[in-house]
Amino acid sequence: MQVNGEPRRTIWLNDNGWAVDIIDQTKLPHQFTIVTLTNVSEAAHAIRAMLVRGAPLIGAAASYGMALAAHRDPSDSGLAAAHEHLAGTRPTATNLRWALDRMRTTLGALPEKERRQAAYDMAAAVAEEDVEINSNIGRNGLPIIAAISEAKGGEPVNILTHCNAGWLATVDWGTATAPIYMAHDAGIPVHVWVDETRPRNQGAYLTAWELANHGVPHTVIVDNAGGHIMQHRLVDMCLVGTDRTTATGDVCNKIGTYLKALAARDNRVPFYVSLPSPTIDFSISDGVAQVPIEQRAPEEVTHIQGKLENGDIASVQLTPDDSPAANYAFDVTPAHMVTGLITERGVCEASRAAIAELFPERVQQSA
Amino acid sequence: MQVNGEPRRTIWLNDNGWAVDIIDQTKLPHQFTIVTLTNVSEAAHAIRAMLVRGAPLIGAAASYGMALAAHRDPSDSGLAAAHEHLAGTRPTATNLRWALDRMRTTLGALPEKERRQAAYDMAAAVAEEDVEINSNIGRNGLPIIAAISEAKGGEPVNILTHCNAGWLATVDWGTATAPIYMAHDAGIPVHVWVDETRPRNQGAYLTAWELANHGVPHTVIVDNAGGHIMQHRLVDMCLVGTDRTTATGDVCNKIGTYLKALAARDNRVPFYVSLPSPTIDFSISDGVAQVPIEQRAPEEVTHIQGKLENGDIASVQLTPDDSPAANYAFDVTPAHMVTGLITERGVCEASRAAIAELFPERVQQSA
Repeated sequence: MQVNGEPRRTIWLNDNGWAVDIIDQTKLPHQFTIVTLTNVSEAAHAIRAMLVRGAPLIGAAASYGMALAAHRDPSDSGLAAAHEHLAGTRPTATNLRWALDRMRTTLGALPEKERRQAAYDMAAAVAEEDVEINSNIGRNGLPIIAAISEAKGGEPVNILTHCNAGWLATVDWGTATAPIYMAHDAGIPVHVWVDETRPRNQGAYLTAWELANHGVPHTVIVDNAGGHIMQHRLVDMCLVGTDRTTATGDVCNKIGTYLKALAARDNRVPFYVSLPSPTIDFSISDGVAQVPIEQRAPEEVTHIQGKLENGDIASVQLTPDDSPAANYAFDVTPAHMVTGLITERGVCEASRAAIAELFPERVQQSA
Repeated sequence: MQVNGEPRRTIWLNDNGWAVDIIDQTKLPHQFTIVTLTNVSEAAHAIRAMLVRGAPLIGAAASYGMALAAHRDPSDSGLAAAHEHLAGTRPTATNLRWALDRMRTTLGALPEKERRQAAYDMAAAVAEEDVEINSNIGRNGLPIIAAISEAKGGEPVNILTHCNAGWLATVDWGTATAPIYMAHDAGIPVHVWVDETRPRNQGAYLTAWELANHGVPHTVIVDNAGGHIMQHRLVDMCLVGTDRTTATGDVCNKIGTYLKALAARDNRVPFYVSLPSPTIDFSISDGVAQVPIEQRAPEEVTHIQGKLENGDIASVQLTPDDSPAANYAFDVTPAHMVTGLITERGVCEASRAAIAELFPERVQQSA
C-alpha cells in the first residue's frame, strides 16, 4: 500500500540483495522509520520488541530471519541456533513456530552450499503467499462493499473497523482492510470509522496511519462511540479481522470486538470478519468456553504512549498509583452475530457446515 | 468520602468563614490540590476550566460563586454582573442557570445588608440538598447490592461502572457510587470494575481515585473489556449514572454506556441507573430520536493527559497528524435494556408508568 505516495510492503529485501528491511511499527504513527536487519539477532529483536507484529508478518519476518542466519552460517548447528533464537521471541505465535520448523527441515535436507539461496527463496515465497491470500480476501470482500455503494446510490460506504487487521499486520493489503483498499482503488467512495482500540491503540496508531497514507477517508473514534453511530445509521457495515476462528464460526479477535457485534446486531448493521483460512481452528467448536484469553501486562492499561508537543515520544501514566488494572487482550464474538466470513476462497456463513464446505480438506485433516 | 483517611466533600467553606475551597479535579488522579476561591472570577474560572465538574457540583459551585459576589458587592448591579459572569461558563449546563436565576431573584428581593448572609445560607442549602438526594439514592440502591451479596453467600459483588458518577461529580456520595459506598461502609464485600471511559478518562482519573481513597476494592479496565468479563460471569451488576433520562426511561449517559447495556442484556446481567430526579426530562419520550448528542473537540480523542516518569503532567498526541477524529460525548440506552432506575424516592422500572407513579407532581408540572 502507499506511504508518502510510494508503494510499500512491511518487509522486503534490502538493495544489497541479502539484508532485510522492515518498518519500525513501534514508532508509528509519529515516525516512519525503516530498519535494516543484518543478522538473526536483529531479526529476533524486531519480532520480540514488536517492530514487526501481526501473525502473517511475524511468519514472514521469522522466515527472513532464517535466511539471514543461512547467509552467515548455513551449517546444521547454525540453523538450529537460529531456529531456537527466533522461536523464543513470541512463544504463543503458533505460525511463527510452524514457519521456522518448515524452514529448518527443508533447509537441513539440502547440501550446505544450496541452503542460502533456498532460504531466501522460501522466505520470499512465504511473503508472496501472504500477499496472495490477502489480495484474494480483498477480491472476495469487494462485492459486498460495491453492493452497499450501489444501494446507497454512490454515497460513501461507512465501514467501522476495530484494531489493526491492516497491511501492517501482514505483508501487504491486510485482511479486514483488503476489501476496503480494493474498493477505494476501484473508485468506490468509502469512509472508515477507526476504533482507537485501547489499550494498545492499534486502530489510532496503525490503521489510521495506513488509511491516511493510502488516501482513504477515515475518522478516528474512541471505542465507546461505535454503538451511538450505529444507532444513528452512520455505519453501513462492520469489518474486522480475527486471531482465531472456531470450526463453528465463533470469532476470537481484539478485546472489544464483541461489543461492536452486539451493537451491529441491535441496529441491523452487517458484521463481517475477514480471515485467512489458516486462522480457522477446526479442533474447537465453542469459542467462549474453549478459547483461552490472554491477560497481558496491566501497564498497557495504566500507561499510554504518544507524541509530546516537542515531537518526542513519551509514555504517560493514566491511572492513580494505587489502582490495579486488568488487561484482557481478546474476546469472542459468537457465530450467530457474524453476517459472514470473508476468506481467500470466498465468503461464507459463520457456521460449521458453510466453513466445512469451503475448506473440506481442513476438516478431514483435523478429524 | 475519604481522602487520605480524612472525610472530604468537593466544596466547602474555608476556615476564614467566607472564601470557598474546592478540589482541583483537573489534576486528579496525580495531584490532590485544594484551591481557595476568593471572588466571582475565580469561581467562574473553576467552573469554566473544569476544576469542578458534574451537574450537581457545578450548581453548588455557582451558588457559592454568587455568595462570593455578595460578600464583595451585594448591590443589584454587583449581583447582575456575577450572574452574567457565572452563567457564561458552561452554556449547556441547565441547572447552573437555574441555580443562578434562583439566587439572583431571591437575593434581589432582600435589603442589601441581608444579602450576604442569605447568599451563603442558600449556597449551603444547595450543597446540603445534593448530599441528601445522593445519600437517599445510596440507601435505596443498597438493598440491591445486599441481595446479590446474600445470593453469592458473601462473595464480593462485582459491579461494573462507567464514567464518573461519583462523589467528585456531586457534593458527596455521588449517584452511581452512593450505593457502592454504603455497601462497602456496611461491610458488604464489593469489587468495582472501573471502565476508563475514553476520551476524557473520568473512570480512570476520577472514579478509580475516589475508590482507592475510600478503600473500595476495584480494578481499572479499558472500555473494550466489559463484554468479555460479562460473558465470563465476572460482573454481577452494572451501575451507571445519567445526564438526562426521558419520561419513558431512556437513559442518556456518557458515550459507551449503551455498549455495556447491550452486553449486560446479552449475558443477563442486571443493569441499573442511579439518578437524582431533577435529571428526568418529562418533556421527551424517545431518547435516541430526541436527545441531541453533543460533539466535543476532537482534541479530546487525538490527545490524552497523563503523568510523565518525572511526575510532571503532560499531554501526548495519540493519532497521526493527518487523521481526523470525531468526539460524540453521550449515547442513549433504550429503557428496555435498563433493569431499574435508582432515585432518591426509591427504585422503579424504566417505564413511563413507573416513573410517573414515583414522581406524580413532576408529570403534572410538565403536562
